[in-house]
Amino acid sequence: MFSAKFDDLVQRLRVLPGVGPKSAQRMALHLLSRNRQGGHALALALDTAMQDIQQCNVCRSFSDHTICEICSSNQRDERLLCVVESPADVMAIEHSGSYRGRYFVLGGHLSPLDGVGPDQLGIPLLLKRVQQEPIEEMIIATNATIEGQATAHYLQEVVKQQPRVLPLSVSRIAQGVPQGGELEYVDSHTLSQALQYRLKMGN
Amino acid sequence: MFSAKFDDLVQRLRVLPGVGPKSAQRMALHLLSRNRQGGHALALALDTAMQDIQQCNVCRSFSDHTICEICSSNQRDERLLCVVESPADVMAIEHSGSYRGRYFVLGGHLSPLDGVGPDQLGIPLLLKRVQQEPIEEMIIATNATIEGQATAHYLQEVVKQQPRVLPLSVSRIAQGVPQGGELEYVDSHTLSQALQYRLKMGN
Repeated sequence: MFSAKFDDLVQRLRVLPGVGPKSAQRMALHLLSRNRQGGHALALALDTAMQDIQQCNVCRSFSDHTICEICSSNQRDERLLCVVESPADVMAIEHSGSYRGRYFVLGGHLSPLDGVGPDQLGIPLLLKRVQQEPIEEMIIATNATIEGQATAHYLQEVVKQQPRVLPLSVSRIAQGVPQGGELEYVDSHTLSQALQYRLKMGN
Repeated sequence: MFSAKFDDLVQRLRVLPGVGPKSAQRMALHLLSRNRQGGHALALALDTAMQDIQQCNVCRSFSDHTICEICSSNQRDERLLCVVESPADVMAIEHSGSYRGRYFVLGGHLSPLDGVGPDQLGIPLLLKRVQQEPIEEMIIATNATIEGQATAHYLQEVVKQQPRVLPLSVSRIAQGVPQGGELEYVDSHTLSQALQYRLKMGN
């Protein structure tokens, strides 16, 4: 509208998830009117992050180095391995503060129609870790969606077949009524799972 | 969480209006996982825009050049001048497709407490244009807020005092019920304005 460079910026801002043409225009106008310094700093941070952030060679999460902070820490319990779909899931679990083991990031779920098979999810690397590391329990924390469940089942099957000296137990994060959930509004599938996997009280 | 560079990107993304910590994290993860190319292109567009987009010397809107496309076009009716608060308002009016005159962008409204007076709004430049250009009508299109109305009143007073060869008419954009507005839900001040400034039908 004003200028080709303005239109280009609005167009480029739309690569951000959840940003449509109206918000992109508002963002561009805001930066130009009030915070050009912030705009430059954002450009630099974007360039640096896109260039330098890589996949950790051990867990496949994002990292500044070839091995990420969690994998290289000796404060982590190496007997626990949690398998998740994405780096965002690692962040969510870390944020919960209730896990002190290590991770493995699949980077998605099995989806043969989209060409996503075991190799794309790094499953050969996962199996090598299962064979070589002193892991005692593998917690599968893929999403509670149909695709996430199918991926969890596949993982359980394939891990079971690995030759190991020590026994390995495989678990799946619990499904049920979320904290604060009112039964009236919980969907029937979740409710049926919550009933089926009920826990004995007073243990 | 993963890396200092990731945290820095999340922090920098928050300069964008409407982006909180959660959306910033989502944006950073999306770009890193799916669109690093788009991230680099956005960084370049940001840098170019912040560096090169300037204020038009005539209308104070944004422009790639010292004089913007609207001011330098000879397709525009030079007898009409529309005064708005921000470049976003120019875009909104252009988008409506119902105005073919020129613009003047105040860059805000009068706000003595924040140190925004006539000089900050470029009013000396506006008065020079009123004296030198063959403007016949000045349409004041500041926002329909208290501050916008006060600025409109001030402008009308100060423009009236300018020495001119030709008469200048000063108008204000209409206030009333918006298109699609149901009377039941329109606020009482708007309704009172709509009644006061009613138009004769069948003219």
